[in-house]
Amino acid sequence: MLYVVGIGSGSKLHITKEAEEVLKNVDLIVCYKNYKKYVERFNKPIYTTGMTKEIDRVEYALKEAKYKDVALVSSGDPTIYGLASLAYEINSIKNYNVEIRVIPGITAASLASSVLGSPLNHDFVVISFSDLLTPLSTILKRFEYALKGDFVICIYNPLSKKRKEPFLKAIDILKDFVKDVNYIIGIVKNAGRDNEEYLITNFEEFYKNLEKYLEFIDMNTIIIIGNSSTKIINNKMVTPRGYLNKYKIL
Amino acid sequence: MLYVVGIGSGSKLHITKEAEEVLKNVDLIVCYKNYKKYVERFNKPIYTTGMTKEIDRVEYALKEAKYKDVALVSSGDPTIYGLASLAYEINSIKNYNVEIRVIPGITAASLASSVLGSPLNHDFVVISFSDLLTPLSTILKRFEYALKGDFVICIYNPLSKKRKEPFLKAIDILKDFVKDVNYIIGIVKNAGRDNEEYLITNFEEFYKNLEKYLEFIDMNTIIIIGNSSTKIINNKMVTPRGYLNKYKIL
Repeated sequence: MLYVVGIGSGSKLHITKEAEEVLKNVDLIVCYKNYKKYVERFNKPIYTTGMTKEIDRVEYALKEAKYKDVALVSSGDPTIYGLASLAYEINSIKNYNVEIRVIPGITAASLASSVLGSPLNHDFVVISFSDLLTPLSTILKRFEYALKGDFVICIYNPLSKKRKEPFLKAIDILKDFVKDVNYIIGIVKNAGRDNEEYLITNFEEFYKNLEKYLEFIDMNTIIIIGNSSTKIINNKMVTPRGYLNKYKIL
Repeated sequence: MLYVVGIGSGSKLHITKEAEEVLKNVDLIVCYKNYKKYVERFNKPIYTTGMTKEIDRVEYALKEAKYKDVALVSSGDPTIYGLASLAYEINSIKNYNVEIRVIPGITAASLASSVLGSPLNHDFVVISFSDLLTPLSTILKRFEYALKGDFVICIYNPLSKKRKEPFLKAIDILKDFVKDVNYIIGIVKNAGRDNEEYLITNFEEFYKNLEKYLEFIDMNTIIIIGNSSTKIINNKMVTPRGYLNKYKIL
């Protein structure tokens, strides 16, 4: 049996009871090498590979899962930019016939939202800026439609030392929308972890100090761009759900 | 202190350690009346109100939180269609000066995704079809941009006995996109709860049997419409992340 398990931030605080129980009971844990530290406490054999070795990791997990209970661990939720789909795909292509079960986890969008206040509290999009597997034109097209729809926008994998182009091109697109709205922007690094940091600003201030923000943002950062109603309340980023437009407060 | 706490599906399996600890330690729990059953096990005083009484519930929680530790409980994640924003707004308007902390939870999108397979495994939008607080024109505009962007679409509050119009209008919009793609559609009722049920189909089949599906769907249902790459693999709904377009499997 293969369990594809989400562990949230990696902190003991953000794991569910279900994920905890599964990890206590499997025979083998398979994960990305930098996440080994989050699962060592379960005292199981651990197989790890590095970045871009996802196929290798999933194949190993599936092969072992023919005879054992294996947990393929993702941070956050395994169905949100995690390895659940790849497990289903390879299982079918290679005819492994392994039974697969997904154990959901708290995704980084929720963790980042809780740190910033409540920016996701209306319709939103989640979009990854990594162009390793998605053409840049698709990323930018989606970003533009998200802005046209006045969605709150939550960006995963915004930029790395080597990959700044998608982010900078998106900022150019955003600039064209700013004549109407000075978007509130929330930036959370290492959400839910010991070294968590966050900033809340608006587009104007962000753009003026772009270099400074580019230094701060990395691959473990989530960026949330508000919709046209998002505001700052007591230093928190809040997107109203709309109750106060409809009902009076006495 | 006011904790705005997400409890996921309501099942003990899907709550985080952090939420569990907070609920064990507060003096009072405030929640929607139908969720009382999920928090009774903490043996705390519980204050509940019904649907459309959200402002009352939040005000009560904030007033009590001046002197006590209070948990305002949402199912799923409190920043995703939950009451976190309203708490920040009322706290500011009424000058309660209560300290607010959001405790994230697993949102219904992740729960539903894990049940269906892995449909959210690429860029997606989350959109509520309730037009109680959002104009129908905004909902439909967003739905259309989501389709244009080829996002996976996750719909909360799709319809109720009395409110079918947004859903039916959205289906009309979807129909115009179907000439290119016979979208895979996943429907999950009561995700993560004992009475969980799900169906996976495609647009053609869905539309042919619309009446049957309208009977099945309710306010506790999440609907996920795939993007143009989403497929059915071994009876599960899977949206590829793109690894197999880039890397060869040997």
